Amino acid sequence: MLENGTHTDLSSLGEFGLIDLLTSNIKLHHESTLKGAGDDAAVIQNSNNCSVVTTDLLLEGVHFDLSFFPLKHLGYKSIIVNLSDVYAMNATPKQVTVSLGISSKFSLEAVEELYAGMLLACEKYNVDLVGGDTSASKQGLIISVTAIGEAQKEDIVYRNGAKEFDLLCVTGDLGGAYMGFQLLEREKRVFLANPQEQPDIEGYDYILERQLKPEARKDIIEMLKMLGIKPTSMIDISDGLASEIFHIAKQSNVGVNLFEDKIPIDPMTYNTAREMELDPTLTALSGGEDYELLFSIKQADFDKIKNNPDITVIGHITDVKEGVHMISKSGNVHPLKAQGWKAF
Amino acid sequence: MLENGTHTDLSSLGEFGLIDLLTSNIKLHHESTLKGAGDDAAVIQNSNNCSVVTTDLLLEGVHFDLSFFPLKHLGYKSIIVNLSDVYAMNATPKQVTVSLGISSKFSLEAVEELYAGMLLACEKYNVDLVGGDTSASKQGLIISVTAIGEAQKEDIVYRNGAKEFDLLCVTGDLGGAYMGFQLLEREKRVFLANPQEQPDIEGYDYILERQLKPEARKDIIEMLKMLGIKPTSMIDISDGLASEIFHIAKQSNVGVNLFEDKIPIDPMTYNTAREMELDPTLTALSGGEDYELLFSIKQADFDKIKNNPDITVIGHITDVKEGVHMISKSGNVHPLKAQGWKAF
Repeated sequence: MLENGTHTDLSSLGEFGLIDLLTSNIKLHHESTLKGAGDDAAVIQNSNNCSVVTTDLLLEGVHFDLSFFPLKHLGYKSIIVNLSDVYAMNATPKQVTVSLGISSKFSLEAVEELYAGMLLACEKYNVDLVGGDTSASKQGLIISVTAIGEAQKEDIVYRNGAKEFDLLCVTGDLGGAYMGFQLLEREKRVFLANPQEQPDIEGYDYILERQLKPEARKDIIEMLKMLGIKPTSMIDISDGLASEIFHIAKQSNVGVNLFEDKIPIDPMTYNTAREMELDPTLTALSGGEDYELLFSIKQADFDKIKNNPDITVIGHITDVKEGVHMISKSGNVHPLKAQGWKAF
Repeated sequence: MLENGTHTDLSSLGEFGLIDLLTSNIKLHHESTLKGAGDDAAVIQNSNNCSVVTTDLLLEGVHFDLSFFPLKHLGYKSIIVNLSDVYAMNATPKQVTVSLGISSKFSLEAVEELYAGMLLACEKYNVDLVGGDTSASKQGLIISVTAIGEAQKEDIVYRNGAKEFDLLCVTGDLGGAYMGFQLLEREKRVFLANPQEQPDIEGYDYILERQLKPEARKDIIEMLKMLGIKPTSMIDISDGLASEIFHIAKQSNVGVNLFEDKIPIDPMTYNTAREMELDPTLTALSGGEDYELLFSIKQADFDKIKNNPDITVIGHITDVKEGVHMISKSGNVHPLKAQGWKAF
């Protein structure tokens, strides 16, 4: 009924393959559309400044599990993931719109919890919720958020400006959100097996917070401005460090050397990974949802950030011919693998 | 698991009640946010002009039925419904973002069909598709579109400017999209009862097109500008004439007299309604999805539109104390009922 003729499985393409294919037919008509699909956000030129626009769709059972995700946190996070994309353009978010698809299993109080979390994030990040759409859904909760930000044209940082010899930097630490997720999944399995069992999540606050109440790096954008640094490229870490490095490498047409021993991993992330027999480096490379910023800077800017506890230099940009590699703790050089996200 | 304490059924509020309640807690922070929730689109002031932003979520099984909705048409319509909201602000759409949730039952070719319809609408309405998000969905197709438009601040028309004695106008004709939907539903029932039966949709092209391939009234916006008319209030007809009249009455704090015999209904809509034992007036009042424009103008502007075949004067604005009434064909005065949309 859906179509005739050829049938290509979406799984054979993967998410990025599908997006590349779909967007290859797009023609842009307006001079004011400075950037369309393919970065953290689109960029639209107004008279003196630019609007950046980004949107994200969060689906129950795919992006979140309501059996352990409190609705207020979910509302908060759904705003944060969009603001993070705006900051990753070196822009300031100003407005969001929110569309909800809500099934009849939700009460008004549940929807209000969700909305309260959204408004809390808006309050904290000084953003206006300016509209949206609310629909009944047949199956599960659907959250679609669009964020709109502002920047001077010359301040906007794309994914495509990294140059050979630039330093590759990351903010905060990585892998925590993924380990928080693993912990919640483990406790859910325990609970389902034996509902009398109390959840064993005491003392894991940091990684739980990384998963359930992430923040966007507004502070970093403000600090870079204060330090007079404009990154040469930037992206936020939603899918995992490896995948984001590949985005920068591909769009900037460069290679990257990443040093495993420089990747910032919090001790709790590290220990929990070990406890669950997972490789801590892999949680950082492929875990995702950290909403930290990955960016490249000119070497000349190194002195301005070298003592900053929030920024770690994890590698450098190379010629495109050298490819994308990770130098392991033991000194071996491996081609980096983007595990990416294969959900289809 | 979802929440503790009180449980209020969403069905007790209805869509508009829920939206009113949720948006009542919103505080706006930015002077540049000229209009937040509560109109066809939000309005954001840039230096010399304004951006208007609107978003819509379309869900399989709620807003569309893929058993009779061709994917290319669905893609087209999903863009149109958003552009219509931008025109209803008297603004020009410039960009759209598209988020898709796609289940594994869809092939690449199916998604390409959907996208082709979207790009066709973008092409026709001179709009740039500037990004979005693609996710796997567990159940059914989810389409979230955000449209961004541009206007001079002084040109924007809100829902709240109608004044006593203004004339109430509508474009095109109403009820066709709803009758197209009824026809498709009838043929689906026939098909399910007897798959050998051929669908009986010959000769119904106009109402089928109204349902499957609606257009947004770009032409009207351009014409009003040319005629030097700025409506005092405006809204697009997505939920049905009655419901949109109530939006204008409420936000403008006015009453309305609507004349049943003036409501423009195409003969095919009329005859099909009769054939199916439905009241043609009711299809116009409550059918929805026509994406025509409902607007009020000053009486002084009447001469400029009186001979226009695309615009019909269907009533006038009264004092708020007089309420919202329909004067029937037989001359009786009835309070108008907004059937609205109760999907929860």
